[in-house]
Amino acid sequence: MEDVRRRGTVDSVCPVERALAVVGSRNAMLVMREAAYGTTRFDGFAERTGTSPATTATHLRALTDAGLLARRTYRDPGERSREEYVLTDAGRDLVPVLFGLFEWGSRHAGSTPPPVELVHEGCGEPVAVRVTCADGHDVTPDEVQLRRRAGRPTTGEHR
Amino acid sequence: MEDVRRRGTVDSVCPVERALAVVGSRNAMLVMREAAYGTTRFDGFAERTGTSPATTATHLRALTDAGLLARRTYRDPGERSREEYVLTDAGRDLVPVLFGLFEWGSRHAGSTPPPVELVHEGCGEPVAVRVTCADGHDVTPDEVQLRRRAGRPTTGEHR
Repeated sequence: MEDVRRRGTVDSVCPVERALAVVGSRNAMLVMREAAYGTTRFDGFAERTGTSPATTATHLRALTDAGLLARRTYRDPGERSREEYVLTDAGRDLVPVLFGLFEWGSRHAGSTPPPVELVHEGCGEPVAVRVTCADGHDVTPDEVQLRRRAGRPTTGEHR
Repeated sequence: MEDVRRRGTVDSVCPVERALAVVGSRNAMLVMREAAYGTTRFDGFAERTGTSPATTATHLRALTDAGLLARRTYRDPGERSREEYVLTDAGRDLVPVLFGLFEWGSRHAGSTPPPVELVHEGCGEPVAVRVTCADGHDVTPDEVQLRRRAGRPTTGEHR
């Protein structure tokens, strides 16, 4: 049986639950969206996520503690010392999820198509989020299997 | 300026906000995870998401109303009439997001690697979620640009 005490934590059996323990709130995702779009300053995060300064501060701190953002100090032109937040490698690895939400929202949510799209800077074509096999071929959800990792105990609930 | 009244709704300017207006809660995502894994019955959703029957019912109804799940009636062997929930095309389109969370959680959350992985049934290799251009080549987050769609007004905040 699954150890239910771990449910919904970063040590859940299911990696989706692990991820949602970190980025499972709308506001956490919006902060990550902003970071992916290049926002770095506290005021920018607060304004563009539409959340209060207190909520913004809470999420920036949590996402920094979880390793998705890194806090850096820099000096602005007036020589004041300021903080900025940038994506770490772990934060960049969340980008496919953010772009996947973008694609899904563009296709399936809302009464009219959204006014913005994500395009490849090089060619100007829209980007797509795809599930592929190791050989690069597209895989449909039906062809994907949840499997216990080699070397792990084989008994018990796999979710 | 962005119309702030639409923020966080299915008609938000930003498609990520549109998507999160539908699947922006941990429990909604877990219900979708279960549907993607093949769970169809109410009891299965309640048990495997670890939520109360009332919460499960609320999310199944909301996700059905939003068009990600379809409710079907079937007769079990005892000839009782029962309801089941299956992914619609819109629901299947969320699978890259769910698998993206799986991949992120496997790589970056938790004190030990998770005991499960997602593999391609055909070859047994792990699947990956990738961001690609229309020509199929991988695109890094830095190469992606947020652009106003052709034919849309060009003024105003793009987020």
